[in-house]
Amino acid sequence: MTFKINILGCGSATPTLRRNPTSQVINVLERHFLIDCAEGTQLQMRKFGIKFQKINHIFISHLHGDHYLGLVGFVSTLHLLGRTKDLHIYGPEALGDIIFSQLKASSSYLSYHIEFHALTSKKSELIFEDNLVTVKTIPLKHRIYCNGFLIEEKKHPYRLDIKAIEENKIPIAWYHRLKKGEDYNENGIEIFNHDLTFPPYPSRSYAYCSDTAYLESIIPIIKGASLLYHEATFLEKHKERAKQTLHSTAKQAASIAKQAEVKQLILGHYSARYKNTEDFVTEASLVFKNTSAVDDGDEFNISF
Amino acid sequence: MTFKINILGCGSATPTLRRNPTSQVINVLERHFLIDCAEGTQLQMRKFGIKFQKINHIFISHLHGDHYLGLVGFVSTLHLLGRTKDLHIYGPEALGDIIFSQLKASSSYLSYHIEFHALTSKKSELIFEDNLVTVKTIPLKHRIYCNGFLIEEKKHPYRLDIKAIEENKIPIAWYHRLKKGEDYNENGIEIFNHDLTFPPYPSRSYAYCSDTAYLESIIPIIKGASLLYHEATFLEKHKERAKQTLHSTAKQAASIAKQAEVKQLILGHYSARYKNTEDFVTEASLVFKNTSAVDDGDEFNISF
Repeated sequence: MTFKINILGCGSATPTLRRNPTSQVINVLERHFLIDCAEGTQLQMRKFGIKFQKINHIFISHLHGDHYLGLVGFVSTLHLLGRTKDLHIYGPEALGDIIFSQLKASSSYLSYHIEFHALTSKKSELIFEDNLVTVKTIPLKHRIYCNGFLIEEKKHPYRLDIKAIEENKIPIAWYHRLKKGEDYNENGIEIFNHDLTFPPYPSRSYAYCSDTAYLESIIPIIKGASLLYHEATFLEKHKERAKQTLHSTAKQAASIAKQAEVKQLILGHYSARYKNTEDFVTEASLVFKNTSAVDDGDEFNISF
Repeated sequence: MTFKINILGCGSATPTLRRNPTSQVINVLERHFLIDCAEGTQLQMRKFGIKFQKINHIFISHLHGDHYLGLVGFVSTLHLLGRTKDLHIYGPEALGDIIFSQLKASSSYLSYHIEFHALTSKKSELIFEDNLVTVKTIPLKHRIYCNGFLIEEKKHPYRLDIKAIEENKIPIAWYHRLKKGEDYNENGIEIFNHDLTFPPYPSRSYAYCSDTAYLESIIPIIKGASLLYHEATFLEKHKERAKQTLHSTAKQAASIAKQAEVKQLILGHYSARYKNTEDFVTEASLVFKNTSAVDDGDEFNISF
């Protein structure tokens, strides 16, 4: 029941040797999603032991270089490594041309198919769904069109109470229906579902919000998320700069976390001007206690 | 009188943590040229202490990702760092669109001007010239349009023989003309130039040849070069693979070096399948003795 976030890079645009620009890999129930893919993402994946070919879905927030310039290199490498599975890429409309024109210029005819999903809506929309997981966009406010992503587990099954099931001699054929929440009803015997099961595990969710100005309209979308990654490019002492560049401060990120009643907040996308991240945590914790500042290589597991 | 090559990356397409893909910085008489700009070049420059803003000219050999995917990130960073000087980029025609469409997608209006010089000729041509240095293309044979680059010093001045000049009481106003090779001739006194000067230092040159199949037509262009960088993606034991992919083996690179009578050969662009480079030197040295295999961070100084 894995729900794990690997931080491959959490810096912002100006390159430093301290941290890579933005990229994360999310493993949610063995679906492996790459969110953003800055220059150098491939090497970060090598460094942190992420398996390239497990990635089937890539979500790009926006077309500032520090969020996508590693993408063409990554898709080319998948080809060099002999991929055959389809790869789905979700991102702003112009990204399709950027990818395909570069592949064309290099005369690269990939060994696999890229299905590009252009994101254009300014409202939150469902962009991925399978039997266990959904992904929705979180429209953000930045200098160019930008989306965050909300990754959610669908409702988990009711958990069988084996002791009660054995006592009541429930046939195996019924287990599937009990997991879905049905009451038992056979041969004139009725038993409420809640007498045969425990409640489902709560559905976990991860909200990724980068890059964005302070934006209250995202609160209903990310309400109650298990884990929120919110950009904190600046500290409050540089809040004017945050305003000009449509970025957030640590305090603003914490304010969003508090209002959205998320369980945990992680910060990233620090401006290169800051040498350490302690001040980000100090500032944010005054508003929202369960806050940490991420670093490249960090791994976060969302438990039930 | 610097003529220095800094190897920022010498790997090939498949990314490894051992070495970065291709990029080099050439400092020739304080002109700083960047040749190729793979993903990660910015960080390699940081790592090896190369000053970003000194680069005024970038030469891109071809549009395979391992030679140019760091370019848009690099030009964006120059902007973030406040550049105002023009930047000249030379490369295959499609590169212009690739750069400008990505800048447009990110709504980046650069603080400086990029002058893009599209390379289209299949013959060697002069693409850069100032008072001291020239750069010519070296048409290569690869899967897509590809050029190497020959960087040459122009003829150096005759070196004044101070002792002879003082003995002959040559006025300072004449020094400039003596350096150009003129004979002294004033007030009826004639002195041959060679009695007042030493011969000029020889003109140094650097030939960069990557990526290419074995190609004898480059020999007259690079004839007598002080230093030749020639790709050696494979060893002879994989020469069939070299042939298929239009790359060279170490032995082939050495054969070119020998026929072109260059002074020194350096090898790079090794396939990721090889763990070390000793075998490349062993193989090439049998044909051309003065050979080394480069590694990221290496620096080569061309002396007179």
